[in-house]
This record gives sequence, C-alpha cells and structure tokens, in this order.
Amino acid sequence: MKLGVCYYPEHWPQSFWREDARRMAEIGLSRVRIGEFSWSRLEPEPGRYEFDWLDEAIEALGSEGLEVVLGTPTATPPKWLIDLYPDIMAVDRAGRPRKFGSRRHYCFSSETYRQESVRIVSALAKRYGQNASVVAWQTDNEYGCHDTVESYSNNALRAFREWLMQKYQSPEALNRAWGCVFWSQEYRSFEEVDLPHLSVTEANPAHRLDFQRFCSDQVVAFNRLQTQILRAHSPGRDIYHNFMGHFTAFDHFDLAQDLDAATWDSYPLGFLEQGPWPSAVKMRFLRQGHPDQAAFHHDLYRAVGRGRWQVMEQQPGPVNWAPYNPAPLRGMVRLWTWEAFAHGAEVVSYFRWRQAPFGQEQNHAGLLRPDSIADVGAAEAAQVAQEMAALAPLMGCSKAEAAIVFSYEAVWSLDIQKQGASFDALELLMAWHSALRGLGLNVDLVDARQDLSAYRIILAPSLPIIGQNLAKRLLESGAILVFGPRSGSKTEDYQIPEGLAPGALKGLLPILIPRVESLRPGHSESVEGGGAIERWLEHVTGEAETLAATTAGAPVWVRSGRAHYVGGWPDAALLNRVLERACAEAGIETRRLPEGLRLRRSGTLWFAFNYSAEPCDLGTIAPETAQAMFVLGGRVTPPAGVSVWRAR
Amino acid sequence: MKLGVCYYPEHWPQSFWREDARRMAEIGLSRVRIGEFSWSRLEPEPGRYEFDWLDEAIEALGSEGLEVVLGTPTATPPKWLIDLYPDIMAVDRAGRPRKFGSRRHYCFSSETYRQESVRIVSALAKRYGQNASVVAWQTDNEYGCHDTVESYSNNALRAFREWLMQKYQSPEALNRAWGCVFWSQEYRSFEEVDLPHLSVTEANPAHRLDFQRFCSDQVVAFNRLQTQILRAHSPGRDIYHNFMGHFTAFDHFDLAQDLDAATWDSYPLGFLEQGPWPSAVKMRFLRQGHPDQAAFHHDLYRAVGRGRWQVMEQQPGPVNWAPYNPAPLRGMVRLWTWEAFAHGAEVVSYFRWRQAPFGQEQNHAGLLRPDSIADVGAAEAAQVAQEMAALAPLMGCSKAEAAIVFSYEAVWSLDIQKQGASFDALELLMAWHSALRGLGLNVDLVDARQDLSAYRIILAPSLPIIGQNLAKRLLESGAILVFGPRSGSKTEDYQIPEGLAPGALKGLLPILIPRVESLRPGHSESVEGGGAIERWLEHVTGEAETLAATTAGAPVWVRSGRAHYVGGWPDAALLNRVLERACAEAGIETRRLPEGLRLRRSGTLWFAFNYSAEPCDLGTIAPETAQAMFVLGGRVTPPAGVSVWRAR
Amino acid sequence: MKLGVCYYPEHWPQSFWREDARRMAEIGLSRVRIGEFSWSRLEPEPGRYEFDWLDEAIEALGSEGLEVVLGTPTATPPKWLIDLYPDIMAVDRAGRPRKFGSRRHYCFSSETYRQESVRIVSALAKRYGQNASVVAWQTDNEYGCHDTVESYSNNALRAFREWLMQKYQSPEALNRAWGCVFWSQEYRSFEEVDLPHLSVTEANPAHRLDFQRFCSDQVVAFNRLQTQILRAHSPGRDIYHNFMGHFTAFDHFDLAQDLDAATWDSYPLGFLEQGPWPSAVKMRFLRQGHPDQAAFHHDLYRAVGRGRWQVMEQQPGPVNWAPYNPAPLRGMVRLWTWEAFAHGAEVVSYFRWRQAPFGQEQNHAGLLRPDSIADVGAAEAAQVAQEMAALAPLMGCSKAEAAIVFSYEAVWSLDIQKQGASFDALELLMAWHSALRGLGLNVDLVDARQDLSAYRIILAPSLPIIGQNLAKRLLESGAILVFGPRSGSKTEDYQIPEGLAPGALKGLLPILIPRVESLRPGHSESVEGGGAIERWLEHVTGEAETLAATTAGAPVWVRSGRAHYVGGWPDAALLNRVLERACAEAGIETRRLPEGLRLRRSGTLWFAFNYSAEPCDLGTIAPETAQAMFVLGGRVTPPAGVSVWRAR
Repeated sequence: MKLGVCYYPEHWPQSFWREDARRMAEIGLSRVRIGEFSWSRLEPEPGRYEFDWLDEAIEALGSEGLEVVLGTPTATPPKWLIDLYPDIMAVDRAGRPRKFGSRRHYCFSSETYRQESVRIVSALAKRYGQNASVVAWQTDNEYGCHDTVESYSNNALRAFREWLMQKYQSPEALNRAWGCVFWSQEYRSFEEVDLPHLSVTEANPAHRLDFQRFCSDQVVAFNRLQTQILRAHSPGRDIYHNFMGHFTAFDHFDLAQDLDAATWDSYPLGFLEQGPWPSAVKMRFLRQGHPDQAAFHHDLYRAVGRGRWQVMEQQPGPVNWAPYNPAPLRGMVRLWTWEAFAHGAEVVSYFRWRQAPFGQEQNHAGLLRPDSIADVGAAEAAQVAQEMAALAPLMGCSKAEAAIVFSYEAVWSLDIQKQGASFDALELLMAWHSALRGLGLNVDLVDARQDLSAYRIILAPSLPIIGQNLAKRLLESGAILVFGPRSGSKTEDYQIPEGLAPGALKGLLPILIPRVESLRPGHSESVEGGGAIERWLEHVTGEAETLAATTAGAPVWVRSGRAHYVGGWPDAALLNRVLERACAEAGIETRRLPEGLRLRRSGTLWFAFNYSAEPCDLGTIAPETAQAMFVLGGRVTPPAGVSVWRAR
Repeated sequence: MKLGVCYYPEHWPQSFWREDARRMAEIGLSRVRIGEFSWSRLEPEPGRYEFDWLDEAIEALGSEGLEVVLGTPTATPPKWLIDLYPDIMAVDRAGRPRKFGSRRHYCFSSETYRQESVRIVSALAKRYGQNASVVAWQTDNEYGCHDTVESYSNNALRAFREWLMQKYQSPEALNRAWGCVFWSQEYRSFEEVDLPHLSVTEANPAHRLDFQRFCSDQVVAFNRLQTQILRAHSPGRDIYHNFMGHFTAFDHFDLAQDLDAATWDSYPLGFLEQGPWPSAVKMRFLRQGHPDQAAFHHDLYRAVGRGRWQVMEQQPGPVNWAPYNPAPLRGMVRLWTWEAFAHGAEVVSYFRWRQAPFGQEQNHAGLLRPDSIADVGAAEAAQVAQEMAALAPLMGCSKAEAAIVFSYEAVWSLDIQKQGASFDALELLMAWHSALRGLGLNVDLVDARQDLSAYRIILAPSLPIIGQNLAKRLLESGAILVFGPRSGSKTEDYQIPEGLAPGALKGLLPILIPRVESLRPGHSESVEGGGAIERWLEHVTGEAETLAATTAGAPVWVRSGRAHYVGGWPDAALLNRVLERACAEAGIETRRLPEGLRLRRSGTLWFAFNYSAEPCDLGTIAPETAQAMFVLGGRVTPPAGVSVWRAR
Repeated sequence: MKLGVCYYPEHWPQSFWREDARRMAEIGLSRVRIGEFSWSRLEPEPGRYEFDWLDEAIEALGSEGLEVVLGTPTATPPKWLIDLYPDIMAVDRAGRPRKFGSRRHYCFSSETYRQESVRIVSALAKRYGQNASVVAWQTDNEYGCHDTVESYSNNALRAFREWLMQKYQSPEALNRAWGCVFWSQEYRSFEEVDLPHLSVTEANPAHRLDFQRFCSDQVVAFNRLQTQILRAHSPGRDIYHNFMGHFTAFDHFDLAQDLDAATWDSYPLGFLEQGPWPSAVKMRFLRQGHPDQAAFHHDLYRAVGRGRWQVMEQQPGPVNWAPYNPAPLRGMVRLWTWEAFAHGAEVVSYFRWRQAPFGQEQNHAGLLRPDSIADVGAAEAAQVAQEMAALAPLMGCSKAEAAIVFSYEAVWSLDIQKQGASFDALELLMAWHSALRGLGLNVDLVDARQDLSAYRIILAPSLPIIGQNLAKRLLESGAILVFGPRSGSKTEDYQIPEGLAPGALKGLLPILIPRVESLRPGHSESVEGGGAIERWLEHVTGEAETLAATTAGAPVWVRSGRAHYVGGWPDAALLNRVLERACAEAGIETRRLPEGLRLRRSGTLWFAFNYSAEPCDLGTIAPETAQAMFVLGGRVTPPAGVSVWRAR
C-alpha cells in the first residue's frame, strides 16, 4: 500500500525538481510516474537522443527515496516522425487521416510505427533498465483513449486480411462463418474483404465482431513488442499499463497477460458526468461520484491484473474533460483513496503533481496549484498517508463470495447488434454489480476463462457467447448461477445457435428463448410480486420453475437446480429480489444498504464509505458496529466519511 | 386473394427445400418470392453462371403447387463486380464512395452497372422466363432503401448535366427558371452546373428540385431496363417492384407505369417507432402499429398500381431494424393481413419463411423460427388461409367516396424549403388521411394526373405546384374540394406564382395569401368554434366566405362554392370540423370512430379492425350491426380482433 | 436619421426601376443599397464587364433623389471564376472543399481571390467612385456568414505558418508560448505546424486561439484591400460593411478601423429563435423579438463604428432562415426602427424592397410583396418617416453612464476551453447587458482598447486576458468596476497567469481564485440574501470584503474599493443585486423595469418601447411621465408601442 503521483519534470524548470521531490516525500508519497509523453524531449531530432534531463530528474526523485515508474512515450510520436512517415497516422471511421496536434495519432497496424516504437523503447530500456530508482515501467498511455483502437488505414486493411487468412484459412470458411450468402456478401479471396465501415447500411455483424477481435489483437501485439524489450533490459521490474474507465474496446485480460499488474485511471466525477446514470442520480452524487463506479473498476482491474492492481491516476480535484466539472466534496479524495486500498490496490497515484498552466489540460487540478501552493487534494493525500500506517497490516484481499463474469467479447457482441437502442451492455454489468454492492457484498469480476471454483454465487448478466467448455465449468463450480438476458444467444461466429438461445446453457437450464423484444423507454412490464422488466423482454419457454412472471403471465425469472435465468432487463426492485434469493440459496447473508453507503471487507477490517451528502448512522445498517472497535472514524459517518472497524 | 412468403433457398441446405415447400402449402401459402439477393450464388465468378441450384429450388416449390415470384438480384452486386468496376459505387452527400459490405451500393447513373444489370437480368429472364412455376418477377429490391436514390458520383454529375440540357436546351433558360441571378449563381453552360451538395449554405431550391426529379427519373430508367428484358423473355408474367413505407424519394407513379402491379413492404411496428407520431401514441399502439399507417400505404399503393397491388413483405413478428422492436399483440399478424385484403390486396406475402441465424437480419422473425419450429406468425397466417375461403367471394374494391391527392413532387417541394422545422409534408398527408378514416370512410389516394371524376370529395392537404390543367380538372370533377396550406404556392420552376398563392387555384377560390408564418412547437392559434392552428399559419385575404377564424380574427378556413381552403396546419379537432362539413356538403355520411377502431367496406362486406388493447363494442359505433350477419367475429371485437359483417 | 432599403435591380425588369424609385421616395426612404451579389451580371464572362445596367439603375434611383450605397460583389464569385481558379474555394473543418451553389464559397487566404477581388473592386470604383448618386460603399456582404471565417485550405495553411513566423520569429518561442512540451507537441520549424483540425482529441488551446487571431486578421486584410481601392477612387464617400448579429468569429473593432461607420443586419425574430434564451422566453416574445437583443447589438456596433453606425438590413416581416418564422406583431417594424434611432443609428435600411419570387430567400418578406403590392412593413416604415421630422432635432447620442467591456478575443478564449458545457460567453455578455437595461439605463459596449474615462460604472462580465495596461486604465477610469467570472484567468498566450487568476487584476482586487467549478444544469448554489450561482462557481480567496456568499459559506461576490468581483455565473436575481449596489455606489439611479418594457434616453427625449403583448402603463414605472409632454404615444403604451416624451 503506497501513495504515488504523476509528474512531468519536463514541464517545469529543472530548479523545481529537487524541491518537488522533497515535498512529495513530505506528503507521504513514495512512487512517481514520469516520462510517458516526453518523446519530443527524449529525441528532439531524428536519432538525436537527449537523456541528460531525464537522468537528472530520476536522480532528483531517487535522492528523496521516491520510486520511479517510467513511461514509454509512444502515445505521442513527435511531429517530425509523423512527417517523415505519414503512414503512421491512424484513419478515422470516415476515412480521414487523424492528424497531429494532440495525442494518440498513430495506427496500431503501422509497421513503421512498430519499428519506431521498438527503437525508442529499446533506447530507454537500455539506459534506465537497471537504474536503481526505476522500479517499474508503464507502456504507452491509455491505449484506445479518444476512440483510437480502431483505425481504417491501408495498414489496418492489410493486417486484417492477413489475420482473417490465419483464422479461416479459406474464403469458403469465412463465408460460412459470417453467413456471407446473406445479401451476396460472399468473397472469393481474402483480398476482397474490406474493413467494415462506410457501407450503405450496417455491415455484417460477424465481420464487425472479427474486426473488433482483430483490433484488440493489434493492441495486444503492439504492447507486447514493448514488454519484450523491457523484460530483456530491465529484469526484476514490474511492467504496467494504465487502463481506463468505462472502456472496453480491446480485451484487457489478453493484454494484461504481458503485464505484472493492471493499473487504471480513476476519475469519479468525470465518469459520473459521462456515465449512463439518470440525471437525478448525477445530481445526487455530483461532488462524490457514483458509489459503485470506482469499485466496479477496482474489481474489474483486480481481475485483469490477476490480483495485482493499482490506481495509476487518481482524480485530486476538478478535471477538465467532462461536460461539467465540479469540485469533489471535501474528503472525497481521501475516501476514493481508501476505497481503492480496501479493494486491494497496491498503489494509489494522484494525477498530477502540479496543475499545468498550459496545454490541453490546464483546467485539470493537481495536488499542487500552478503556483506551487498545496491544493485541497494534497492535504487529503497526506491524511491518508498518516492513516495508512495503522491500517495496512490489518488489510488483505481474498476472493469475494460473489463473482460477476466479465467478457470484453460479450460487450462487443451486444453492442454490434443492440436490437434495442437502450440495451447497453456495460450499463447492465454495472447495474448488477451495483445491486450486489447494495446488498453489502464484496464482489469479484472474473474473466470467463479463469478459475471459477472459489465462488458461492456467480452472475452472468449477459454473456451471448458461451461455449460448452464454459458451460461445463460453470456447472462444476458448484456455485449458484444467475444468468441474465441474451446469455447463450450467439455462437462464436455470431450466429444464432442451432437449437436457439440459451445455446450451451441448455445443459444447466431446460429452457428455450424463441423470441425477444426490445421495449421503448417508458414501457415496462410489471412483474408479480414486485419490480418490473424494462428495455428487454424474452419469451422464456421450457421446463424450468417459474419464480416470477409478468402480470400478463409470461415467465421472466426461472430456475432449475442451481441455475437462475432472468429473461429481461430487471429494474432495481426485481433485481434485488433475484439476488437476495440467489444469495440465500448460496448461504450468503445480505443486507440492503442505503443508496449512498457502501461497505467493503478487507482482511480483518470492515470499511464503510459514505458517498451521500448527509451523515450516516451505521447503527441500523451494521448493528455489529455497536460493539466494534473503530480504527478510523466512528459509528456516525459524515458525508465523504470513512469508518473502519475490526471484523469479529 | 392469396397468401405468400419470401424465401431464401440459398440460405438453407438443399435437403430443406422440399419439406419447406410442403409446409408452406400446408399453412395455406400459394406464392413464394425468391432470388432477389442471390447474385453471388447465380454468378460466383465473372461470367460463370450457376443456375442448377435455382432450377432445383423452383422445381421443389413448383412441385407443391407454389407460384414463384422471381427477383432480379441487382440490389446486391457481388464484391468481384465492384472491384472490377469501382465506378459502380454510389457516392454519398459528403462525397465519399459508399462501400461494399451490405447492399444497395450501386449508383443508378453508372452506365457500367446498367450494362451489368442488363446482362444478369437477361440471363435470368432467358432461363426462367417461360418456367411454368414462375408467375411473376420482382425487379431489384426496395429501390432507395438506406437513402440510395441520390448519388453524388461523377456518373450522376454527367447524367444530370445531360438531363438539364434536355430539359432546358439553353443555359439562359435554366438561369431564368432557377432564378440564378440571385447570388450570382448564373451558368454559362451546362458543364458549369454542379450537383447540389457541399455548398456553403443551402443550394438553390429549384436546383434541388430538378436534382430530385432527375434522381427519380434515373430510378425509373434503371427499372425500365429490367422490365423491357423481362417483358421480352417472359410473356404473360406480372412484373412487380416492392416499394417501401414512408418513402417518397422517387416518383412511384412514374416507375409503376412499367409494372403490372405495385407491391409494398409493410412493417407496422417498425414504422410506428420510426414514424412522426408523439410518444404517447407510440406507447398506446406499440404492439399493434398505428391504426392508419398500413391503410395509408395500402391506399397509396393501390393508386400506384392502378388498382392492382400486393403486400410483398408482411411483418410476422418482431423486426430487427427499429430503435425498439417489440412483438406484435397476439392476433395482429392476422389483423394486418385482413386489413390488406380489405383494401384490395391481391397477395399478402410474409417476410420471411424462416428466421435467418446469420447476417444483418438475424433478429428478424419469420413464420418459422431458425430451428424450423412454427413461430406465432405461422399460426395466424394459417388461420387467415382458412378464413379466406368464406370471405373472398364477397369482397371487392371499388372507388372510395373520398380521395386525397398524393404527389411525390409536392413532398419534395415542401421538404426543400420547409420554412418551418415542423412542416412535414408526409405527416400532413397522413394526418388528413387518418382524419377521414376516423370518420369511417374508405379513402383513395390519387395521382394528380389521374382521372378525378369519380369522387364526391377530394382533399389536397398540400399541393404547392398546381398547373392550370389540374385546377381545371379539379373544378370539373364536380367534387367538394378541400385544399390545405401552401397549395398553389409554387410554379413548376419552384418560384412564387406571379399573382402569389394560391396560383392557379384562384379560378376556384377568390383568395390570395400574401404572407405565411411558421409557428414553434407549443404555440398555437385558437380557432373560434373549436380547434386550433399549429405549425403553419397563412394570412388569407380575398372574397371567400370565412367559415372559421382565429380568436384574433384571422380567417383560416374559407369556402367559395365547392372549394374549401384551410390556411394553416389544423389540429385534429379543427380538421374534423372541416372534413365533417365538407363531407356533409358532399352528401357523405360520417361517424366519429374511437382512436383504435377502424372500419373498411369491401364489396358487400364491412370490416372492423380493433387496434386498441381493449375490447370494442361495435353496437354504438355501428348500430347497423345489431341486425347484421357476422361472417367473422361478432359485435364485440377483442383487442387485435377483426369483425366482418354483410352490408345491407 | 434616414430610412433606406436594400434593392436588387438585377432581379427585376428594367421597366420596374423608375417606378420602384418613385415609390421608395414616396414612402420616405432616402438610401438604397444595391449591387452586392451581382458579380455574374457585372462580369458575365472573364474580363467582359457589363456596367450599362448598373449605370441605368443608379441613374433611376438618383433621379428620385435617392442616395446609393454600392456593394462590392465579392461575397459571390461567379462559377466561371471558381472553375478557372479552384484554389479560391474554402475548405471546411472536415477537409472538404466548400462548393459553389450558394454564396461565400471563397477562402480569405486565397491570393488568387484577393487579386480577383482587387480587379473587380477596382473596376467598380473607377466607374462609380465619383458618381454623384453614390454616397457610400459596402464591402462584400456579411463576412463570416455560414461559418466562413475559418478555412482549412492549403492557402490558409501557408498563410498561417507565415503569420506565426512573423509573430514568434522562432519555433522555440512558439513552443514556449503554446506549451508544446505538453504531449510532445513541439515543433522544429514553422513548416511543421498544421491547422488545428482533425486532431485526435482537442488541439492545443493556444494553437486554436492563434488560429482564430490569424483568421480574424485575414478577414481584416481582405477587407482592407477593398477599402484602399475605394478610398483611392471614391473620395468623400463613406465605406461600410454589414456585420451580423450574435457573431464574433473575427474582431470587428479591428476591421472597422478601415470603415467610416459600422452597419449591421438586424433580424429580431430570427435571432430570437436562434438565440440562447429558454423556451418560455421565446414563446413570450415570439412576434416581438427579445427586448434586449437588438439593443445589445446597437450598443455594440455603435462602439465598433466609433460612434457612427447604421442598421443596413432591418427585418420587415417574416424571414426564411430561422427554424420557425412567425410574423412580427403589428407595429414591431416601427418599434424596431425607433429603437435603432434612439440608440443613435444614422440610417435604418430595410431588407429588402420587394420579396424575391425565386432563389434561396423567396420566403423572406420585403417592403413590397412579390406582386409589388405594399406589404405590412411598408406602412410602418412610412409612419416612421412621417414621425421622424418631429423627433430628429431633439435626439442625440451621448455616452451612457454604464459601460460593458466587449472583447472578441475574450469570446474566443472562453469558447476554446469552455470547461463547462453551459458557459456561453456571448450569452453572459447579453445577460449582463440585459440586466442593466432592465434597470432603466443606457448602456455603452466598449472596446477594451478604447478610452474608458467617461463612465461611472464599467462591467467586465468575463475578460480572461487582461494585461497590466488595461488593468491600469480601468483603475484610473475612476469608475465603479464589476468583474465577472474568469476575468484575468489567462495570459496573452492562453496560459494560467503565474500568480493565478485574476492575474493583472490583483492590483485592483486582493483576491486569488485557486479553483473553479462548472455546474450541470439544474444544480445551483443558493446565495445568502437572494439569488443563486449557476453554471460556474469559483473559489474566491483573499482579502476582499465579502458582499455575498453561498449558503455553504463560499464568498461569491466580493469588493475592494471601487472594484467588485462576482465569482460565478449569477442568476438574474443575484445579478440585479450586484448591479443595483454597484450603480448606487456610482451614484446612478436605477429602477426595475418590467420584462417587456425598455427605456432609452436620447438627447432631450425619453423613449419607452413595449415589447410585451399587453399594454403597459408608464405611470408607476416612470412617475415623471405624469407631467411629461409626450411627442409620440402617451402614458399607456400599447403592445409594440413607442412612447416618447421630453426629459426635464
């Protein structure tokens, strides 16, 4: 458990560096990420490297005992490089080159850029790979930010055709898999296949899904080029990449195979504004962030990092990039930090040290103001640093009782043919996660390919592609299973399974879904016993036991043995009913928490986080606190408050 | 009166075909449309035709007595053809080629594509023109779908200049007609004229109207190339094209001159979602479709087909392409089918036989599920098949008492300069049609160029371009005439008539419209005696008798002799007043029907269709039913119910 | 004080011209603007000029004593010119050439077009420069209309690089000024700099601000080419340009340095529809226009013209270009005209003489209908003409007590990084102006570079870039100063000032703004004593006296000596509190006017304008009217009424 910060020595006079380092240490920070946008300083002219300044900066930080995470600068190739090799540029969906002038202007499929990346990363790795202060590396920065996973360049086209050839071996196989007989889309060779854009109406969904898989693979391959170099020249150092929130355009599980830990960039207020929540929810939490948004990603990236994860960028004040950018409620920076640690973060690193007075992000707060005075966030970070000593030894992160299966491919599949404009795959996943949190549980998100045997309850809110292998492993897990709509509705090739949905799940659930409906906003189907179905309604037939039906008599929640199936998008009330019962079947105790309060068990500690703007008395929510020993806060948690007590 | 289905043998193993044919016949279907997207199967390589499979498929269908409608495959040129001749590709409004990957990627002005179409259609026509099972042809598929009437290619540019030269003979004539002196838009030669896109602000409206006329002519010419071949090689067979709903981008009357009957594709639920109705109406009819939407198109395509028409594609369950896609209320597939027959349809053909498990439309229901089990629609189709025997002999389709003039050119004209963002020409036409239906009347839509003498009342909801000839024919019709706003407000050249609106109508109506206003949503002008004007208000001056004025005293409904004029967009209440009085003057009896109930007289039968979700007692609505003999249903019509009785 | 009209002789038969001139004079018009879109008539073929028709037209007008304002035709280069030199075309943000077919299709940076403009303007200036009837010139027409200030052509790129080289001299200086070290945006030469479009995410704000400055300079330089020619060949004539409403894309103060007077095009109803007001306000004033919209621009263009200004185009009836286009309330054309004169207009010129029956604006009313009958506006213009004789001698335009600093650069700066989606710079300026008007005051808008010494109160609603010089001049003005949010928050280089906001204002205000927040719609912070902060909230620290704080205790309105600072976007109630107190401190009497009534003092006269739809009794609003002598109207002002009395 460490605190860190993101720092850009190149933005400041060299004379600032040692004093900055001293103050970082003083606050209690021990990690500093640097370098990830500095290519034009590292190589101001083609082939002329300038490392002196970086030597100096690392030395200044190291002299205060700070550990350096060094970023590779490939997110920002300099202008001279783009001018020298214009084929580096990505091409947007409309077929236009994405020009220089901000960042991430490169195409993952450009061989030239891959070579240039190898060159600059090698130079860095050789120089700093064994530097005592450099304890870890970050590859690139936020892969995919600004919609950059997909590129429609000629490089991408060539690589995609090659990828398809490797996958299908023959055009006939591709034609079969994609169902190209539909609308005479058949190809005679891989050279005939285009990228799926600018078609008259929507492109073939299987074509689109394969393109998404290809794009994901390109990101993974690009990243691996860097990790291979870093492993070779920098033994014993961790390698990270900083992932993003609400972002699913490539398979993070795949990419993280080449990393030592996952890290992500957490901006609770910006994400609240951009997120799928209704306006009333955004009003209620506008200075706090949604109570489950960060936790969802903590749980996700813990899975991505195979247990090891960090917050690489933590919002320390107002940001600059959301439609509206309020300041956090006093105390929230501390709360967010503790929430991350309670979820097992190794490091929480604030973005950024000092607010920049120039460039695109000059309205983004830092720990320091541009005039070097400590801003609000610095004090809260310092407070956490002081509190850490007492708590760290008592914390720990074991498997949760409840798991939610997370699949990037599932999100792509659902987005490619939404069938109802309001079917948002990530929103569904977050809603089910939120419901479990609201019942007081620790939750793990899990990769469908990972071991599932430790859980007493496993949720699959929507998993269209389920192979026989996964079905078998789910069955053998022994857990109570809860499947949501569209599960098992597609094959690997994005076709309807021969025996219809739920495909391979039929071994677990003797049901069949012959028809689905998407429902317009405002239309819901009431469910007997409470709650309703919105957005999506399936016709559930078969032999399973009906646990709830619409008032019109259509079963929407059925069960067979240990498997539940929810044939629609449940509203919060119905979802609570389903999960409470499923938890009870799994022998897991639940309690309904108020909307703004969340609990998290970590090692021998219980944490309570108050996201609401009013104080919260834990007495009724967690009666065990009556006798508990609080190690932080007390029974009444103030707004933005954190209370911690020892579990008995 | 026949039932049919759309079938894609190429999507299924050959082993399915005979069983499929057997089941079609069993259900009571007698027509099968096939082939319209199968080019890549008919000609898998340039010049190598493969007809064996189609021979087999037609034979399989024919062996069960099914009549085949064979589609030409020009809606989906295969990839090798596009690669061979890239100039086939259409170009979108933004100047980008519309790429392969879905359908309709060709430009109507491509001479290459015209030749290639002639080639493939000739090959098909020669092989199947005299096949005993082939009773009819369909040219292409849904001309214009996905906004494909307009193309901004160089081919289109060349053809447009030629078209203008033919029309105007000299640039001076064009300059005069378009008013090019405005903003120095004058041309010295036809070679200087561009297509009307990418201009800095809106292009000249006369330029735009001529481009729309040109585009329409190109579609008609393209289609004629095919019908000429088919007529030559397939004597005695009908030729159809399947038109669309809510679609006006080319003149269907013109194109249908080359057809034997009009057919259209009816998707009541998809069209409800996409249509102009307010949200509350969409909620009310979300599983039924709008009570007048299909009927409007039935009436339109009956006119387009000069009395002969069919539903080529009838929605049988949820579709895949609307923002939200619910399932029809049980019984609606039957209701829609009967509504079509009651409007004179020769055939109602369901789309599609079996739901496809692959491709872009895999969420589109069929009569069969993908697993070959009969879906809901199949049972309803079978029921209609059984009921048909009793009713068919009693049905017939004579001219309605009331006519509405429909003009594609009028819709283009009104859209080109809306002048008020809420002036939607098609919505106005549908609202006036709906009002007549709501008064219990049969309605004919009529081409302004067709004989008008049979009607007792003729409505022209908005007909900007009215020549002296039409004015004369309207006068001589002897009918009560009701003109709506903007009638007579433009010349053929899209100019304001010399003596202002209503132009040539002044012979019928001694009025003059010196000024018009468009009104923002929420602003309406109350009318004395009930109702209001919304969206559009005209200053009506002159000698006509005022039948209603706004509370501010401005006349909005005037009459002179047999001609009425409504100087604005009437709300439903005012429109009812106008039409009830006009009908009374015409000696036509009316009755106000509830929103969800519609009547249709067909031969000696009366049909009642209940689009509402509640039962409807016909007793008060149609007192004559007290003594009537019901041949289908009874006096109380359930939701989605059809009641039929003999007229006395 | 004169009335005028815009006339297009080329649109009408020559036989109309003399009668038109006669009727203009009869109505009381004395000025006629002609020629500004007539290039294709002046030069129908390359190099072949046709001036005879224009000679004739000017002669016809002159013979009735009408003064001619002759427009240069550069807003509409003819097609042959564009075809001859395609590099004239502007290029849009997406990189597409903006094609011929409407107007303003040229790029300000095209050297070819500059030469061609010089050629046609020289030809005109030589022929008409000393014509007795030609009293003034108008350059081009509405620079920037249809978003044409910015062009992304190669011409623009070359010129921008040259402009940057002139400004910065070295790439190092540019890199420093723009903070290019951020995201490795550093340039090695000016040749590496691109135009700020099509970048992956937002471009560098300093890059964008410099591009805006460059674009503004290009417009100014283009205009100057014309004024130099006109000055040389047409001595003693005024030179104007007609600016627009709600339009800030270039610096009008700069451009007007080359003009004799500013003129602008006033369309109160179109601007209401397009403007930022809430729907309820648009409903209330839909036939009147917003009570302060025209006045704001009158006050602005009076400043732009250094005291001399005109309305070049005055709406005379419904227009064609807003989403909804209602007719003005009877009397409003007269009211608008008087409002302009009361604000010091030299001329109010109606657009246009006769409604055009063809072209893009055929739904735009004129003084005459297309059939040459006088429309409503003509009668109201004639009434003003009659009333003028009595009032003109008594009118005058002296400096107002209150000034608002207007800066185009400020608007650009605020728009480039809004930081909150609802922070609209122009809306803020208009709201503060409206509040002063609502307190019964005359208001001057002033260029920050102009003499400020005459004012008793000066408002700067938001002025991000404030140099030491301006701060000093504000201090020395002796006025009460009221600064709004973001004032002093940026340097000339678009950086945060070293000591943070309010930068150079710290000499006047001992405050510091360490943090700002943008607030989502619906969220406001109540202020003790009344009113609230919306949209934008600053953390105001320092030594100034708190005059109001939020209920949470955060100071939002502070004062130090004569300077006030409002740290947020005040709602109307709070703004009124601030301005009433500041006015009181300045010794200026205020009164709260009802929303629809506005007063204006002009020389020895008081004007009252009733924008509401109900009569307004001036008795309680202006008790002094009890004894006043009315020279127009009386104490009860009808809707759309004007009352004028002598000040005592």
